[in-house]
Amino acid sequence: MKLLRVDMDQLLVKWEPVPALYERLGGRALIARLLLEEVPATCDALGPHNKLIIAPGLLGGWSVSAAGRLSVGGKSPLTGGVKEANAGGTAGDALGRLDIKAVVGEGQPARNSWHILYIHEDTAELLPAGDVQGLGTYATSDRLQERFGPDSSVISIGQAGEGLMCGAGVCVTGEGNQRSNHAARGGLGAVMGSKGLKAIVIDKPQAKPLPLADEQLFRSAARTYAQKLINDPKLGRSGSQHLYGTASIVAAVNEIGSLPTRNFSAGSFEASPQLRGTVLREVTLARGGEAGTRCMHGCVIACRNVYADEEGKAIVGTLQYETISLVGSNLGLDNLDAVARLNYMCNDFGLDTIETGAALGVAVEAGLAKFGDLDSLLALLEQVGQGTALGRVIGNGVVTAGRVLGVRRVPACLGQAMPGYDPRSLKGNGVTYATSPQGADHTAGNAFGARNEVNPLGVQGQKELSLKLQIIAAMLDSTGLCLFARPPIIADPQLMVDMLNGIYGWGWTKEEFDRFNRDVLRTELEFNRRAGITAADYRIPEYMREEPLPPHNVVFDVPDADLDAVFETL
Amino acid sequence: MKLLRVDMDQLLVKWEPVPALYERLGGRALIARLLLEEVPATCDALGPHNKLIIAPGLLGGWSVSAAGRLSVGGKSPLTGGVKEANAGGTAGDALGRLDIKAVVGEGQPARNSWHILYIHEDTAELLPAGDVQGLGTYATSDRLQERFGPDSSVISIGQAGEGLMCGAGVCVTGEGNQRSNHAARGGLGAVMGSKGLKAIVIDKPQAKPLPLADEQLFRSAARTYAQKLINDPKLGRSGSQHLYGTASIVAAVNEIGSLPTRNFSAGSFEASPQLRGTVLREVTLARGGEAGTRCMHGCVIACRNVYADEEGKAIVGTLQYETISLVGSNLGLDNLDAVARLNYMCNDFGLDTIETGAALGVAVEAGLAKFGDLDSLLALLEQVGQGTALGRVIGNGVVTAGRVLGVRRVPACLGQAMPGYDPRSLKGNGVTYATSPQGADHTAGNAFGARNEVNPLGVQGQKELSLKLQIIAAMLDSTGLCLFARPPIIADPQLMVDMLNGIYGWGWTKEEFDRFNRDVLRTELEFNRRAGITAADYRIPEYMREEPLPPHNVVFDVPDADLDAVFETL
Repeated sequence: MKLLRVDMDQLLVKWEPVPALYERLGGRALIARLLLEEVPATCDALGPHNKLIIAPGLLGGWSVSAAGRLSVGGKSPLTGGVKEANAGGTAGDALGRLDIKAVVGEGQPARNSWHILYIHEDTAELLPAGDVQGLGTYATSDRLQERFGPDSSVISIGQAGEGLMCGAGVCVTGEGNQRSNHAARGGLGAVMGSKGLKAIVIDKPQAKPLPLADEQLFRSAARTYAQKLINDPKLGRSGSQHLYGTASIVAAVNEIGSLPTRNFSAGSFEASPQLRGTVLREVTLARGGEAGTRCMHGCVIACRNVYADEEGKAIVGTLQYETISLVGSNLGLDNLDAVARLNYMCNDFGLDTIETGAALGVAVEAGLAKFGDLDSLLALLEQVGQGTALGRVIGNGVVTAGRVLGVRRVPACLGQAMPGYDPRSLKGNGVTYATSPQGADHTAGNAFGARNEVNPLGVQGQKELSLKLQIIAAMLDSTGLCLFARPPIIADPQLMVDMLNGIYGWGWTKEEFDRFNRDVLRTELEFNRRAGITAADYRIPEYMREEPLPPHNVVFDVPDADLDAVFETL
Repeated sequence: MKLLRVDMDQLLVKWEPVPALYERLGGRALIARLLLEEVPATCDALGPHNKLIIAPGLLGGWSVSAAGRLSVGGKSPLTGGVKEANAGGTAGDALGRLDIKAVVGEGQPARNSWHILYIHEDTAELLPAGDVQGLGTYATSDRLQERFGPDSSVISIGQAGEGLMCGAGVCVTGEGNQRSNHAARGGLGAVMGSKGLKAIVIDKPQAKPLPLADEQLFRSAARTYAQKLINDPKLGRSGSQHLYGTASIVAAVNEIGSLPTRNFSAGSFEASPQLRGTVLREVTLARGGEAGTRCMHGCVIACRNVYADEEGKAIVGTLQYETISLVGSNLGLDNLDAVARLNYMCNDFGLDTIETGAALGVAVEAGLAKFGDLDSLLALLEQVGQGTALGRVIGNGVVTAGRVLGVRRVPACLGQAMPGYDPRSLKGNGVTYATSPQGADHTAGNAFGARNEVNPLGVQGQKELSLKLQIIAAMLDSTGLCLFARPPIIADPQLMVDMLNGIYGWGWTKEEFDRFNRDVLRTELEFNRRAGITAADYRIPEYMREEPLPPHNVVFDVPDADLDAVFETL
């Protein structure tokens, strides 16, 4: 395997054998280690010393179901710490098939010098961005696929990333005209923008024989794993996650009183029934949209949808739970049509819907729009694309919006907006938000699925639960596995160990693999420590410890000492 | 002596005997200790757990020349750490004469509930702010002095503080219609605004016999000190500081290449001759303004000026060096008329001219105005008063402006804008900016005066110089002494010890007094440590280590290890 270094100072590309230190790493694990080794932790995240890292997980390119996610990483301009965000689409698989361990963008060109990195088999070159500069991610993806072929993978940023806004993510195309898979969180779109990289295009690799270390071991484990996904009652063809996608949980999150509503001022939303996954599917199918399709080749879960308008025209896909909560209930919007329009606009500008929904919630609290009033919210969001001062405030995320607009109720940890679970009534997620080296992030360890195991309103057991989930998340993000595909691996980690040993011949034991996963967190925590992040930063916002959240009227009351102790047994 | 606690939750005032722990503290020393004891270091600086502390220095109320400065403090919303800023005017003296060790604003009322604290001899009450809410500091001071008498001291905030903007300071009136003494730095105006306190009015205290512990000791030391000020060649009646005020140094700072010019992109300014103190005095006197007047009763230095327009109408007083550099050369403005207009507007909105000048410099770099073009700069600044989104971005200071506007060249340390000395060519100030618990602040330890002692372009000796100056600054800010009045005390610290022993009878030795001054820094560093501020935060911006500053083409090259070692011998 090889690294592709892209020197944006000199506008040169360089292939490099994978250094020994990185050999057994992929995705998030590789990002953490590369940042620790190569990036000064205190550097300006939008300056020349940060690096943009694009890496498939360890399973990338090996046709494992739901395991082709692409990790994007760097020092986050939002949190000031380590950042990995990942997305579906075809790019993770393509890089894996090309034997590319990672693409690493380094240095910084003059401002307003925009380029495209074009990768074709074992060649790579930087091309002028030309007329895609300034475009949204949809038009960018369209034009680049017109130019390089419809099967190419396009990784791009929109106006938000070009404008160095810290709410900007990175967009990844998928099969058949899919445009909206996003490695959304932590401002990595701004890091890509700071490198002057408008897009990375990867030509679809030619099929080639896979050099498997132990083909039988791999195939047998991969087959068992896929069969377990198919047989899983939630994931299989009659399962809620296949049928309704992530939106399947709207009702249940509302039920436990954790659905962010009107800038996190309530945990249940009277109009939540209109936002449910069942409604989403029904409306989508009735209007001729898509449901139950895939974001990654070969995925047997197939949870994707494409929401359509009343004329049957596709608006956006896939409409996800986090978007429904943050730009839906959190903004008091009572219908999916409204959510879909805001979602499309976020996607096109290349904005994280979580960060942006939270920022809009704060803007509403400041009186700049009205909860439930789509027009006023669209008018605000449009300004991000226009690059007005107010648009840039929103586009820079919830903490900046709170500061500029003078709002104290800012739902964020470590500078990053909270996703769709209020931590006061799902305290395990609060522990994860506060302590994850990634900042407030549900994918870093989501306790929602364990709500019957650990009382979401209680303090007991939350720190142990969060640690367990954070280790699992590190595993998923380093192998390229989708969150949805975790049950078979959690039930039998040997399956993952066998797949990896089958591919790479490392002869890992389950214990070694466990250590590998824990090391991801250790490495990230060390980067953050060097960046100056301390226990004082790994905290829940003050107001959430004091302002009771309806309907349960609970505050976040997991003691700081518990937060400080999460990693004691790492 | 007593403390006046103002409970803004309950809208109650309470007199309290001074706790033993605070008895021998004043000004900055008291603020540091009170914050450490009473304010959770990780609290929201604009939330209910921060406290606004208004305290005279230890010499306040005792008619010592140039020693009546008023300290304002709290946790800074800009730096996230400890903050003390001080101002001249009559309030420091008034509080001292009333035997009030400090006024402490606590808690937080409902939003948009605005009050005035009115102190008359030994009574205090909260009154509705009524029609002064929403006004600038000039009109607020005017109306409140109309109501409470022309001799009353008014401490107020403008629109910036009311709007919780982090570039907001606190304005203090002085004798004879003086309106513009500002405890400007660190966003304390926003802290005052977060308490719903529009103003504090102190009726002029009736003269009363001073209960001096040793009248002869005090009077003798105070007389010697004042005589030394009068005899000092720089401070006396023919001295540059009396004649030209702080503006006396424009030429010399330009000469050493440290004058912030066009957003800190150069260290000398071709039009600096038009900004000099000599020009300031000449024009001021020719137009019928004031020069050589006082900001504090009984000050023998008298460095104040009131700049007038061509019709002889007062624009603003006192026009100071930091303002001339940050809103003058830093914005490419080549005349004092322009500086005076921006200064007036900042004063009226209640904005720190340093923070705001730096933010405007960044805004120009982002293309929102032009260097040297007053109209475009006035148009930007006007938006702060109007409270537009862009105005709020500027009003929140240089780091927020840099982030929102996507500018990397942000001259700040610990979240606070640098004052008028580029650290690349006055490296001692760079060490102070980076390491002071107060953030980038010249009054925390200004190496300019020592430029003939330690080479400003060299690395050698800077950390030792900065520490020495930081200890002196802690002494000045805790006793209420003006920076200009320090030479006699530095030459003979026993004078200060005698004045304090004469007043309080503490029997301090010089060594004990030295320990007292060092303890101020220790206490502040401990508060910051608890707030999560680490060595990684006590740093100079990355670009200043890489981008050479004309005309000497030097970068800031004092090693981080030196920065980390500054307080080793504290």
